[in-house]
Amino acid sequence: MTDVDLSALTNRQIVLARRPEGLVSRDDFDLVEGAVPEPADGEAVVRTLCLGIDATVRTWLNKGEGYLPAVEIGEVVRCSGVGRTVASRSPKFPVGGLVYGLPGWQEYSLARDDGLSTPIGTEGDPAAMLSVLGATGLTAYFGLTEVGEAKAGETVVVSAAGGATGSAVVQIAKILGCHVVGIAGTDEKCAWVVDELGADACINYRTEDLPARLRELCPKRVDVYFDNVGGDILDAVLGALAQHGRVALCGAISVYNEAGRPPGPSNYLNLISRRGKMQGFISLDWWDRFGEATEQLKAWVDEGKLHYRIHWFHGLRHAPEALNAMFTGENVGKILIEVAKDE
Amino acid sequence: MTDVDLSALTNRQIVLARRPEGLVSRDDFDLVEGAVPEPADGEAVVRTLCLGIDATVRTWLNKGEGYLPAVEIGEVVRCSGVGRTVASRSPKFPVGGLVYGLPGWQEYSLARDDGLSTPIGTEGDPAAMLSVLGATGLTAYFGLTEVGEAKAGETVVVSAAGGATGSAVVQIAKILGCHVVGIAGTDEKCAWVVDELGADACINYRTEDLPARLRELCPKRVDVYFDNVGGDILDAVLGALAQHGRVALCGAISVYNEAGRPPGPSNYLNLISRRGKMQGFISLDWWDRFGEATEQLKAWVDEGKLHYRIHWFHGLRHAPEALNAMFTGENVGKILIEVAKDE
Repeated sequence: MTDVDLSALTNRQIVLARRPEGLVSRDDFDLVEGAVPEPADGEAVVRTLCLGIDATVRTWLNKGEGYLPAVEIGEVVRCSGVGRTVASRSPKFPVGGLVYGLPGWQEYSLARDDGLSTPIGTEGDPAAMLSVLGATGLTAYFGLTEVGEAKAGETVVVSAAGGATGSAVVQIAKILGCHVVGIAGTDEKCAWVVDELGADACINYRTEDLPARLRELCPKRVDVYFDNVGGDILDAVLGALAQHGRVALCGAISVYNEAGRPPGPSNYLNLISRRGKMQGFISLDWWDRFGEATEQLKAWVDEGKLHYRIHWFHGLRHAPEALNAMFTGENVGKILIEVAKDE
Repeated sequence: MTDVDLSALTNRQIVLARRPEGLVSRDDFDLVEGAVPEPADGEAVVRTLCLGIDATVRTWLNKGEGYLPAVEIGEVVRCSGVGRTVASRSPKFPVGGLVYGLPGWQEYSLARDDGLSTPIGTEGDPAAMLSVLGATGLTAYFGLTEVGEAKAGETVVVSAAGGATGSAVVQIAKILGCHVVGIAGTDEKCAWVVDELGADACINYRTEDLPARLRELCPKRVDVYFDNVGGDILDAVLGALAQHGRVALCGAISVYNEAGRPPGPSNYLNLISRRGKMQGFISLDWWDRFGEATEQLKAWVDEGKLHYRIHWFHGLRHAPEALNAMFTGENVGKILIEVAKDE
């Protein structure tokens, strides 16, 4: 089943040319053009509409291992995204349907029934699916409720609170009845976190004394810390940890660009004296509960309780800049790349 | 109810004279003599038979907080122990009965019904109660099963495997059906851990390449790490952590003597990429299950499956040396101080 002449199309791809150090540069990648593949039996060709930038994309460019292997030199950069099927030899992915998966930095990709690609109907907003209703929202939801075990009345601190995941955590924690303190890197983000997302306070870690402000704003100390950044900020919050406090380790964006591994947090010792827990996770750990969680998130969005912002880049060629924006902290909300208009 | 003339007795006590740095010295303490207190209503006077040295005793001498406050200058050094009641105005602590509690570094102490002192009958071996059937054994048991969630077939690594807690962990992990690798600081300890305690292997971290040996001895990586030491050893084992690995943080003896806080483990980042957990605990967190656990431990001792060794010091005045022995690593098994013969 093919609606288009695939041989007439060109597939622009961004492949890894060399391993970047620190922020990426254009020279770390090659923009190549190739044919769009014909789908084999069980496969479908998906035209990328929209790509979602996560900090993990940067980690995949380094040697070493995460929960998925590193991107090899010459390979298309791995990245989540939403597209629409343009040709199909799979009943699971009919032509015209939307597909959520890992298309990578390219205009066309193959979807197959391997668990990595999910058909998501024909309607729907790709931007919401790549942010609050996708991995970002699920990461916030399960990290806060399952790893953080956040309960009403507890104090929750969230770093990168103006980011895509952090902003969802702030709002879900408020919905749960927690006292919520955000940490962000600009006054503009802090204002958004308090005024729009409803946090009780937000600390600008670049201009304020973080340990002192944590003592002031968390008089009963920190029951749950949702950590997106690692480094000195993790260390400061561990210093303010409550008895039986929980740290949900979502990421360590402050160190992903560093060549070696920087020292860990000295205050991990408080995990002993205060009987705390520090736990890494990815949302895939609750794969079997995605349906239930997505429905809950959608209900909160529809009720106006869960807001999200998109920081758009337009055009595949801007993918490297979009990735850097994640680390320079210029974004508010989720970074997405519009690769093609949904016609 | 008083069987002895308390006013005729002298209470020798070791009190803190100044805060020690690193290993303790005699000048950090004063040996003082005072009257044995008369028990008030609800109190009993307990003659110390035996004191148990834990690493936490050293932490209580530092400023700052653990799960109990620091020992103040001029106060008797806090320490667990077992004694026999010699005078009583409490039905809970009859004269002649054994008492488990926190007598401190002194010959006579007061017990009252405050949860800190527990009557343990009139018979029994104080040495076993202060080691494998007391806090040491309970720490090993709950740390391994509840925090470490050790299951048959999994790989368990234990540091300070020749110490009191570590040696119990090694044996309980073998009883549970785990693949067990110990880490210790002398060949003599390593031999004991393998030959007597039944570990599958034991690494001498002073003479062997720890990361390389862990790769070799833990081909499926480390599911559970029971950490007594912190520092570089914790970092090395985090480097070998399996997916969903658990680190039970029992202590950080390698850093307790340092003045500042040393850097934390760089490899905490593996908690993110491998979705691991690192959790501090003390056995008191399972207070309500002490009875059940103690019975289990006693059954294993009686069946000959759970062995323990005592490293004895004789006389209260040797308490500072006994404490240092914990850190210089000269002990095999539990360090106890015999304060008085049980007549």
